Amino acid sequence: MVQALVLEKKGELSLRDIDLPLEVGPDDVKIAIDTVGVCGSDVHYYTHGAIGSFVVREPMVLGHEAAGTIVAVGTNVKNLKVGDRVCMEPGVPNMNSRATKLGIYNVDPDVRFWATPPVHGVLTPEVVHPAAFTYKLPDNVSFAEGAMVEPFAVGLQAATRARITPGDVAVVIGCGPIGIMTALAALAGGCSRVYISDLSAPKLAIAGQYPGIHPVNITETPLAEVIARETEGWGADVVFEASGSPRAYEGIFDIVRPGGTLVLIGMPVETTKFDVAAAIIKEARIETVFRYANNFDRAVNLIASGKVDLKPLISETFDFARSIEAFDRAAKGLATDVKLQIRLRG
Amino acid sequence: MVQALVLEKKGELSLRDIDLPLEVGPDDVKIAIDTVGVCGSDVHYYTHGAIGSFVVREPMVLGHEAAGTIVAVGTNVKNLKVGDRVCMEPGVPNMNSRATKLGIYNVDPDVRFWATPPVHGVLTPEVVHPAAFTYKLPDNVSFAEGAMVEPFAVGLQAATRARITPGDVAVVIGCGPIGIMTALAALAGGCSRVYISDLSAPKLAIAGQYPGIHPVNITETPLAEVIARETEGWGADVVFEASGSPRAYEGIFDIVRPGGTLVLIGMPVETTKFDVAAAIIKEARIETVFRYANNFDRAVNLIASGKVDLKPLISETFDFARSIEAFDRAAKGLATDVKLQIRLRG
Amino acid sequence: MVQALVLEKKGELSLRDIDLPLEVGPDDVKIAIDTVGVCGSDVHYYTHGAIGSFVVREPMVLGHEAAGTIVAVGTNVKNLKVGDRVCMEPGVPNMNSRATKLGIYNVDPDVRFWATPPVHGVLTPEVVHPAAFTYKLPDNVSFAEGAMVEPFAVGLQAATRARITPGDVAVVIGCGPIGIMTALAALAGGCSRVYISDLSAPKLAIAGQYPGIHPVNITETPLAEVIARETEGWGADVVFEASGSPRAYEGIFDIVRPGGTLVLIGMPVETTKFDVAAAIIKEARIETVFRYANNFDRAVNLIASGKVDLKPLISETFDFARSIEAFDRAAKGLATDVKLQIRLRG
Amino acid sequence: MVQALVLEKKGELSLRDIDLPLEVGPDDVKIAIDTVGVCGSDVHYYTHGAIGSFVVREPMVLGHEAAGTIVAVGTNVKNLKVGDRVCMEPGVPNMNSRATKLGIYNVDPDVRFWATPPVHGVLTPEVVHPAAFTYKLPDNVSFAEGAMVEPFAVGLQAATRARITPGDVAVVIGCGPIGIMTALAALAGGCSRVYISDLSAPKLAIAGQYPGIHPVNITETPLAEVIARETEGWGADVVFEASGSPRAYEGIFDIVRPGGTLVLIGMPVETTKFDVAAAIIKEARIETVFRYANNFDRAVNLIASGKVDLKPLISETFDFARSIEAFDRAAKGLATDVKLQIRLRG
Repeated sequence: MVQALVLEKKGELSLRDIDLPLEVGPDDVKIAIDTVGVCGSDVHYYTHGAIGSFVVREPMVLGHEAAGTIVAVGTNVKNLKVGDRVCMEPGVPNMNSRATKLGIYNVDPDVRFWATPPVHGVLTPEVVHPAAFTYKLPDNVSFAEGAMVEPFAVGLQAATRARITPGDVAVVIGCGPIGIMTALAALAGGCSRVYISDLSAPKLAIAGQYPGIHPVNITETPLAEVIARETEGWGADVVFEASGSPRAYEGIFDIVRPGGTLVLIGMPVETTKFDVAAAIIKEARIETVFRYANNFDRAVNLIASGKVDLKPLISETFDFARSIEAFDRAAKGLATDVKLQIRLRG
Repeated sequence: MVQALVLEKKGELSLRDIDLPLEVGPDDVKIAIDTVGVCGSDVHYYTHGAIGSFVVREPMVLGHEAAGTIVAVGTNVKNLKVGDRVCMEPGVPNMNSRATKLGIYNVDPDVRFWATPPVHGVLTPEVVHPAAFTYKLPDNVSFAEGAMVEPFAVGLQAATRARITPGDVAVVIGCGPIGIMTALAALAGGCSRVYISDLSAPKLAIAGQYPGIHPVNITETPLAEVIARETEGWGADVVFEASGSPRAYEGIFDIVRPGGTLVLIGMPVETTKFDVAAAIIKEARIETVFRYANNFDRAVNLIASGKVDLKPLISETFDFARSIEAFDRAAKGLATDVKLQIRLRG
Repeated sequence: MVQALVLEKKGELSLRDIDLPLEVGPDDVKIAIDTVGVCGSDVHYYTHGAIGSFVVREPMVLGHEAAGTIVAVGTNVKNLKVGDRVCMEPGVPNMNSRATKLGIYNVDPDVRFWATPPVHGVLTPEVVHPAAFTYKLPDNVSFAEGAMVEPFAVGLQAATRARITPGDVAVVIGCGPIGIMTALAALAGGCSRVYISDLSAPKLAIAGQYPGIHPVNITETPLAEVIARETEGWGADVVFEASGSPRAYEGIFDIVRPGGTLVLIGMPVETTKFDVAAAIIKEARIETVFRYANNFDRAVNLIASGKVDLKPLISETFDFARSIEAFDRAAKGLATDVKLQIRLRG
Repeated sequence: MVQALVLEKKGELSLRDIDLPLEVGPDDVKIAIDTVGVCGSDVHYYTHGAIGSFVVREPMVLGHEAAGTIVAVGTNVKNLKVGDRVCMEPGVPNMNSRATKLGIYNVDPDVRFWATPPVHGVLTPEVVHPAAFTYKLPDNVSFAEGAMVEPFAVGLQAATRARITPGDVAVVIGCGPIGIMTALAALAGGCSRVYISDLSAPKLAIAGQYPGIHPVNITETPLAEVIARETEGWGADVVFEASGSPRAYEGIFDIVRPGGTLVLIGMPVETTKFDVAAAIIKEARIETVFRYANNFDRAVNLIASGKVDLKPLISETFDFARSIEAFDRAAKGLATDVKLQIRLRG
């Protein structure tokens, strides 16, 4: 029995003992968890008990944005050793599947993903994970930053699928955590400047701290007007939709340049109206982003090199003992909170 | 004054004399037109007087799918000479525009396109056109085939933007002329087999004549069921939407494989419902197709090599004198008619 | 103990009993081998005892181009069953490696490849193989064709890495088995026509049987002259180097169009002189091909659809009892032999 | 007659009056030149009288890296106006050529390029140029920076053709001006860090001033050793060859990761030995870079946003009257000189 933050059912969290498997297979490592970030999906399971068809039917440990230290390695593991500081990719595919062989293991239908029913998460002192999905942190990357790799990887997947041409001008719609991560990834990934739009001035203020990110408050000026002015009527090379709001789709191709790209990250809950003719007239390319694949190492590299600084996005850190408090705070959705983290080790 | 098929206004065609400019500039050629295909857009201007914001306000010569023989060349023209048999790309961009410099001249907002108000078409004995948009036909490609290059180029643009991996399995939704062109281009462009779906048995019968094209009558079996069975539940690598029907978008991502591609060719008249979440879960790429760029030479090559045989798609040929009759027949939209052509020279 | 064709050492083959592991793991299948093709690398081990740093130090079973019938399946295997007719991909990577996760398992340094020392091949009645690298053959694909999938997959990898634009004009240098496979793959993969060059008239005659493949005998006309004439001085979109001859590199960029592509398949034994300036002036892209990844299913699809007919390339079939004779014939390297096969079941 | 820096013949420069055409065509602008950079090719014409097949046979004005102010515009020009501060792309293609239509106008064989015989350069107070190849400078980009856009565009073309995946690790071989430009472009274009190698400590010290650029002095440590250590034996994602030295090709694929990319920028004067087998075993992609196309606007954006700071690379600025002195200094090739500039206006 080990201690863990358990979602008993919708709306009910306990910090209690639970029985979790901790056997280290030949290709696995065991990690002593240091820091875990609180993600919107964790909170959504807490407040709604389900995300789409994924329903919490049994008590489930939460948490999937994690960093820690290796305490044991399996017999086949060569690239990691006890004492290595690491972060972990929370989804593990079937290694023999067709999608995995193609290198797109994120879309393998059999992926098992931490804190997605019925798979437990990692808000618990120790976990076992495949070495192939565990990534070493350089000395200059803290555990707090290591636990930010997972959400940053979503932004980085978006920047990768956009196939940015160096110097591109980008727009990010939606200034939530994923919107900011996407803006940072787009900038680090080759864009010359990024416009980020939202209705919330405090959120935009946080994003606007970064040189190269230009906030656009759409309660003051229509986004299309700003982009037309800033690009001399040509449009943005890449537009990232990170709000998940169906309203964002109205006139969205007006801000895409001829031959430009739209990247869909935010997942609207309902079917969305889409102006196919407007997309076609621009001959736009539309990419979609589902989690990430093969980019945790790249994310760590960008953080380690200093090109991407995620520290300003950590709004507050809670001890493990206060983790329910952390979730209640996250459930409030304060505009000034980007990321809350839970520290399991002092 | 020269003779031409003139759309006087909605619903009224005349074969009469009209004043058209025939001066040959230094980069131009003059072509004696031999054959012109009747396109759905020509017919739509005839029956509706407009397509979207393009409204016929003055008498306009119809026709933009054309082949003929060069009868004069401008002083700068080197790659073409009098007597060459040619086909012509009907859209001419601003050569100095940003889109044109990028090689995507089809999305230059300043393109002037034959038989699109206020630009005249080519159902007239002679036209002048830039040499850069005029393509030589090899001896083994007839004028009738040459006049099919334009609609085939739309299918070829779709096949190109799909970025087919050799051996891909494709689906084409919609078995109209553009659907069939897309199926042929996808097959010639690297697909191993193509499923084409429609409600019309006669249309499917025409497509089904081609080895490698498999008709699916969706009045008999749901398309998703066929594709699941034929791909062992994996889905098609590429799905081409060529029907322009908003209903085609319902469940469309069920037939796309994880990491697969959807190519949008058909232009629905209204805003379409789109399941963004379904696209994201597959991490699908969505491409759009607006006419074509840089592929008339490739289209001619594929026809000349025998890889693509368009002759079975020419349903009937009319003399120039009978061109109004040709348009009235086209306006009926017979399921057994793929392409009607008008012959200006005996 | 099972019977097998064993390369005892350089120049010495025996058809004799040998001890081979035949245990079926949970992710494996056991296959009764029907047909095995004789590959140039098998023959090279026979005649030279080594390829580069791979040296035959212990007796080794030959053969890696194989098809057969599944006779047992492991407990985890779902997509295959006893009785399925299959072909097999001979290289098995470390499924947890960095390259494999990226989808490029062919370049995983830990790949174990049949009939590459110290790994045994499959000229033996039964073998065990991972299900993930075993591919079902449709009813209309024979075992003989199934055993051709492996060499065709090399050509298909070349066609894939070329990123053919539909309608491209291609050149293949070298009309050996891999050259012909590449020409067929390029044609099926989207090229409008393929010129193939060699010094040997009989080899060119075999390739020239296929519509769309144009033989160029370089003892009669320089290749550059033919390509200049056939492309009006523009050059080929894609040039495949499949000869492995350093002499092929002299002037090779003369036949590549501006912005075109060169694909390197043939592996010269020594360092080759390369005109970097000529490549740069054309701003050519150069791709290389190492075996194949993720294309056996595509290869099977192309053969099953009839787009690619490999049967004319099977020059002669030998019984298993005559397999040494088959290797001695192959070692002669007759210009009229493309592929010799060995049949293990009557 | 206007004043200009004229290369009379090999080794002889005059600052003298010359007759140059200054008529403004309908698509042209006239620019009052402010600043011109001295490029290695200008210097090479001065010291050798030729580059390859381009031989100086008549007196020729030097200079092609330029910025200035528009003083007149042609009748068709809409996107620029008198008073705009601009930089200019020195190569003008045939706008109707096949390459230009494809968007790769840099490889159009008919490109006319400033200060490349027989075309005059721009070390003269005023020049006329097509508006389509003239780019506006934002207020925060100085003329000195504007005159650096041309050499930076070469690095940016290299970064673009590399198709960097965000977070890639890159190596640049050669720390001359183009090597440094490439390193900066690679970093701005998405790389997490860039190793740059050379024999010259002073050159490396200049590059090493930039965060993210790591100098490697190959007189102290072999490059392969450094890259193996820094990438845990995996290799660099992208290697840029910017030295033009045939010796750089020895073992170059040892530093490329499996499936990685080599980008060739430096143009060796002679044919180079190339290890094709080493490239194939890594299944490397090799790209080449010839000048640039469609990236001056992107270059300006990156400079304007502050992502790329070229000012530290301007080693010294000379008045127009001292321009022969500037060339004599450049001809010395001091290791501490990256870029010398000539100022035509005070």
